[in-house]
Amino acid sequence: MKIETHTTHFTSPLYLESGRILEPYEIRYETYGELNEAKDNVILVCHALSGSHHAAGLYEGERKPGWWDALIGPGKGIDTDRYFVVCTNVIGSCFGSTGPMSPQYPSEEPYRLKFPVVTIKDMIRAQRQLLSHLGIHHVKAIVGGSMGGMQALQFAVDYPGFADHIIPLATTYATRPWVIAFNKVAVEAIRRDPRFDNGNYAPDAFKEHGCDGLAVGRIAGHISYLSPQSMDRKFGRNYVATDGLFELFGRYEVERYMEYNTANFSRIFDPLSYLYIVKAINTFNLSRGYDSLHDAVSRIRAQVHLISFAGDYLFFPEEMEHLAKMLRRNGQAHSYHEIESDYGHDAFLVEVDKFDFIIREILEEECG
Amino acid sequence: MKIETHTTHFTSPLYLESGRILEPYEIRYETYGELNEAKDNVILVCHALSGSHHAAGLYEGERKPGWWDALIGPGKGIDTDRYFVVCTNVIGSCFGSTGPMSPQYPSEEPYRLKFPVVTIKDMIRAQRQLLSHLGIHHVKAIVGGSMGGMQALQFAVDYPGFADHIIPLATTYATRPWVIAFNKVAVEAIRRDPRFDNGNYAPDAFKEHGCDGLAVGRIAGHISYLSPQSMDRKFGRNYVATDGLFELFGRYEVERYMEYNTANFSRIFDPLSYLYIVKAINTFNLSRGYDSLHDAVSRIRAQVHLISFAGDYLFFPEEMEHLAKMLRRNGQAHSYHEIESDYGHDAFLVEVDKFDFIIREILEEECG
Repeated sequence: MKIETHTTHFTSPLYLESGRILEPYEIRYETYGELNEAKDNVILVCHALSGSHHAAGLYEGERKPGWWDALIGPGKGIDTDRYFVVCTNVIGSCFGSTGPMSPQYPSEEPYRLKFPVVTIKDMIRAQRQLLSHLGIHHVKAIVGGSMGGMQALQFAVDYPGFADHIIPLATTYATRPWVIAFNKVAVEAIRRDPRFDNGNYAPDAFKEHGCDGLAVGRIAGHISYLSPQSMDRKFGRNYVATDGLFELFGRYEVERYMEYNTANFSRIFDPLSYLYIVKAINTFNLSRGYDSLHDAVSRIRAQVHLISFAGDYLFFPEEMEHLAKMLRRNGQAHSYHEIESDYGHDAFLVEVDKFDFIIREILEEECG
Repeated sequence: MKIETHTTHFTSPLYLESGRILEPYEIRYETYGELNEAKDNVILVCHALSGSHHAAGLYEGERKPGWWDALIGPGKGIDTDRYFVVCTNVIGSCFGSTGPMSPQYPSEEPYRLKFPVVTIKDMIRAQRQLLSHLGIHHVKAIVGGSMGGMQALQFAVDYPGFADHIIPLATTYATRPWVIAFNKVAVEAIRRDPRFDNGNYAPDAFKEHGCDGLAVGRIAGHISYLSPQSMDRKFGRNYVATDGLFELFGRYEVERYMEYNTANFSRIFDPLSYLYIVKAINTFNLSRGYDSLHDAVSRIRAQVHLISFAGDYLFFPEEMEHLAKMLRRNGQAHSYHEIESDYGHDAFLVEVDKFDFIIREILEEECG
């Protein structure tokens, strides 16, 4: 599989939903497979909160491949022998696209808290700019889970003719207070972390010990990505063998999992970026800027293929179902699949074999 | 209603499940109504994680009455005109019973992290000592929600002849990893709070600003006490009117609720006590010390009345149902009620009108 990673620098302004402007800005992106001459084999993949443009393939020296490697590759659900797949790092993130720790032109100083709030609408506007820059004015499909699914939906509403298909997974049409509350743990944990220092930490401040606030907030995140059932299966009430049951800080295995999974993350991920992306998720509301959800959804011209997971405790299947019902009533082309799974929200990342064939079928049907 | 608050000092040792000893120790408790001559009108009420012995009535100068005031009082579900109600502050807590900030005899210095881990078994052993001290060797009922329900269950298993009825609400027979994970947020947030200082904070360190770690941990707690549905109804996607939507730290109403409800708590509740009580909840497993859950449950001689709440996202109704099925198979006297509610775990505190009549009936039947 041919993989390329690029960063494109835009000197033209990106007009944000807030009324503010990002100028200049950069977008880091990765591509898999080859763009055909007609430029009609493009699939845009959108990442979630903690993801990046590195969706597939294995970098040299890395132990883990891209976050959706099980889905994207030669002969896989999204077949890179046929399609040219593009995945960009969203603006506001910390993996190469412009975010709060990028220099605020013309100074060399990072924006930090002066970075403008970005929204899902802004993220897809930036992606649209990038695709235009690559000479791509139409894509076969936009695929994404969680925040990636929000982007797919927003894309279909804001740019109705742009995609033939959108495939949003494990997502919603408007973020519920339940999700905002989980994010609030991270927001408060980060803000109250003295080493966060109101955003004035040194760029390498967390390289070694990690950011405590982010680690704590991420525990809440991981709860919401799993489910009571998946935790029963993964951990049960197992206790870490070397810890005494009556030691105050002795740990159950679920606790060790949380420690392990958040420690590394809090060294790698930028806490300011986390705050900004969480804000984008919280403010996501497909109907904002339109008269109603119905008004927004009615604009969609793409075929909408919704995939939810029965055991998702973050974005519940009911939310996708609500959208499916609206599409049905409107007579808009769509399909809805609720995948049997008790894995929780993470299913869209880890149980790819439960839905990759659905995505393959959607794309193949298109090719006739 | 006659309310009395007392603290009893015990010089005899309390033998703990860990093998350690608490000696001396104190138990603070409150009573409502009057003990009759036969001493056969006693109801023991057990509190949850953040509760105290102050279950009912209004103290002078207080704005809010005791935490179960809707249930306990003259003519109420637990009728203090007929019953003598006792509620003790659990050991490990911070409202007058011996806990980690109590002096470690013979020194005047607080135990802090030298305080022994206490379990639900230890909490009820201490309560049993107190009741013995009051000349009470049998009670009509033991009632409690959440951690209070754990105590009721453990009481019935450990002291089979002691209660005629137990009424555990919104609880479980063994804490699942889902709950341990929510608690983990608090454990890590507190431990990583520099002002917590590994437990060496001054006794009044958090009186003014509160303990950040505890406040953050408590947000995760409040998520688990509510439900997606109750949050939709309470907050929706409402935004705090004075905050700009595109301000990074502008807040949704659910966020303001979390700030408000955790700020005061983090000033009042002792973070070390929180860690110890959370540990007691995490280690709760009715079958520990017995061959199996079935073995433990088979010991129960009390009538078991289980009350769960359909919308409880912390202790799911399935858990109580599992216990009810076991009691049924064993032919043990019991009843099981699943209350229709989408309020979440908090329903046992705030929707008392949905179950007070059940408790009244259970107690009246007994008086026949």
